[in-house]
Amino acid sequence: MMSKALTLCRTFTVGSGALIVTLGIVASLSVGSARADAARDAALLEQASGLFEPIPPEPPQLPGNPLTVEKIELGKMLFFEPRLSASWFLSCNSCHNMATGGVDLQPTSIGHGWHRGGRNAPTVLNSVFNFAQFWDGRAKDLMEQAQGPVQAAVEMNSKPADVVATLNAIPEYGRRFAAVFPDEKDAVNFQNMARAIEAYEATLITPNARFDKFLRGDKAALTDREKAGLGLFMEKGCAACHNGINLGGNSYQPFGVVEKPGAEILPQGDPGRYQVTKTASDEYVFKVPTLRNITLTPPYFHSGTVWDLEQAVAVMGRSQLGAALDDREIAAITDFLDSLIGEMPRTELPVLPAIGTGGPAPHLQPVFQGLRPQN
Amino acid sequence: MMSKALTLCRTFTVGSGALIVTLGIVASLSVGSARADAARDAALLEQASGLFEPIPPEPPQLPGNPLTVEKIELGKMLFFEPRLSASWFLSCNSCHNMATGGVDLQPTSIGHGWHRGGRNAPTVLNSVFNFAQFWDGRAKDLMEQAQGPVQAAVEMNSKPADVVATLNAIPEYGRRFAAVFPDEKDAVNFQNMARAIEAYEATLITPNARFDKFLRGDKAALTDREKAGLGLFMEKGCAACHNGINLGGNSYQPFGVVEKPGAEILPQGDPGRYQVTKTASDEYVFKVPTLRNITLTPPYFHSGTVWDLEQAVAVMGRSQLGAALDDREIAAITDFLDSLIGEMPRTELPVLPAIGTGGPAPHLQPVFQGLRPQN
Repeated sequence: MMSKALTLCRTFTVGSGALIVTLGIVASLSVGSARADAARDAALLEQASGLFEPIPPEPPQLPGNPLTVEKIELGKMLFFEPRLSASWFLSCNSCHNMATGGVDLQPTSIGHGWHRGGRNAPTVLNSVFNFAQFWDGRAKDLMEQAQGPVQAAVEMNSKPADVVATLNAIPEYGRRFAAVFPDEKDAVNFQNMARAIEAYEATLITPNARFDKFLRGDKAALTDREKAGLGLFMEKGCAACHNGINLGGNSYQPFGVVEKPGAEILPQGDPGRYQVTKTASDEYVFKVPTLRNITLTPPYFHSGTVWDLEQAVAVMGRSQLGAALDDREIAAITDFLDSLIGEMPRTELPVLPAIGTGGPAPHLQPVFQGLRPQN
Repeated sequence: MMSKALTLCRTFTVGSGALIVTLGIVASLSVGSARADAARDAALLEQASGLFEPIPPEPPQLPGNPLTVEKIELGKMLFFEPRLSASWFLSCNSCHNMATGGVDLQPTSIGHGWHRGGRNAPTVLNSVFNFAQFWDGRAKDLMEQAQGPVQAAVEMNSKPADVVATLNAIPEYGRRFAAVFPDEKDAVNFQNMARAIEAYEATLITPNARFDKFLRGDKAALTDREKAGLGLFMEKGCAACHNGINLGGNSYQPFGVVEKPGAEILPQGDPGRYQVTKTASDEYVFKVPTLRNITLTPPYFHSGTVWDLEQAVAVMGRSQLGAALDDREIAAITDFLDSLIGEMPRTELPVLPAIGTGGPAPHLQPVFQGLRPQN
């Protein structure tokens, strides 16, 4: 390339030769650089395609829980239904807020009585693509997961029997459960509540991130810095764990492979997957979280202790890879992570039906009475 | 009428005369009854038209706060924005939930630290038509109202300076405030936050209730029972206070005009508008609440102590009118109140923008640490 360009330039050395030679070199470098860029992009794409997968445009089918329009709508109502909680104040959406990336922007979630749970709320977005649910993978799917927070004392603090009694006192739910589960005599039950919520949550996917467009072959979908970040993300080893469709969500890994972070980030009291398996090798092992839409979902880690994404990247480099990433590398990787923001689901709030006369009321304890009227 | 019908029948007395006479009388009664019904409906409509007004199809204009698409959208974002609260967990929508009739289905609202305020959250729906805001009318409009709960210790517990610092740390808000308030140098301020929220809230109206269709002349929009209930509502005196566009929201009245309810419904510690005016005659005086969509917004009264709408009607009859309404009257009035459910605003959840690097984090106190991990 270079020699050809120089040859071309030489034919114009008469007159304003110096300028022409200069321009020729620039042009040749640019042509050469464009070809080099194209080759580099192709190699980057090829490498990325072996590690990652774009989010599909449509929700996946769920084994044993076929998606229907009516089931998804019922599930959406239940997802936003505060009357599933003992207080009638908290819904799934309280901690998996569809307005804020499917999380609550809290270190660990606030629940019943303003108690906090022990771990950061994972995003509901794209959670259907995780191979298991919760940070320790103790639920095999979203249907199993959905039953946990409704009952957890520091979350919604309810009981299946109370949930069913409340739903049965709301005539429209009776009609809707019967329509969605027509073969069942008592369609309003806790399992079906979870089944409908799972169906709705399966639709909460964020396709067409710029990274996905890149994976589909649109090499201009990422900026040069983002491409550099993607290259580093694979080269440095981040992609060893953060891979697949969710860039995570498909393996368990010890937090602190190389170097254990301090207790402020990795609290001693939470041994992770060990609580599920009681196996020594699972101590401080957690499900690798998805990095999709990660820019929108601070704070980071199961402890929710790091608010800054660049800091989180640095911590990961040190603790998982033994790599002291420099500021430029951290910035490039963080830029790449921005490209994982996909199209958010359009969420029209349901209008929840009125409870019938004589139905139950919320459990009002605990209550900390206010000092003076506020409304 | 009757005589004309009988005359007509007489001309057919030959043959199956008895049957024809019978049918004729039934028909004449029916025609007579239909005319009587029409006359009664017309009188009912005339009386109602003098007392009530339908919700208009479009939001009203706000003095000094012109509605624009961009301002309404910004206001919606802020209405759903948990980062306006100290905890980043509570938004306007937490207590004025657009999924549940613009209220929280709580006796009194749960706020920061799970404290409860002193009064039941009034619905945000149609609140733009109220002549003042809060139960004691201490805010003259929604812009003034919106600034209260953000700062109230037992609600969102924030400070204007913290709110502004947070909004300024979210670059998209800077752009949006500047676009909505182009003539201001520091467009991101607490007043403009309230201005935008007011603009959004002004759109939260519920037109085309069946009662409104009746008011517009569609006499078939109400059932006979609802018409009977409307008749009683006016005849018994309910409409003396619950009138106008919101069937309330346009006057202050003592709770217990005729007979003071017990302290379980009218707590002694809350003297109502007296707190605003310090005038003896304002003791236990409250703004008359709207009855629009009342079926959707239990529990009732400023104390939120009555869950059943029929019971609330009975209490009102006794305490405000000195009337012991019988079960049939209470049921008819409650049926009429059902006809006040209008078309709910379609609410697409906003996608709230990410906070920039180095921005503030929520205030995490008070925290009641959970016993074990939940996510």
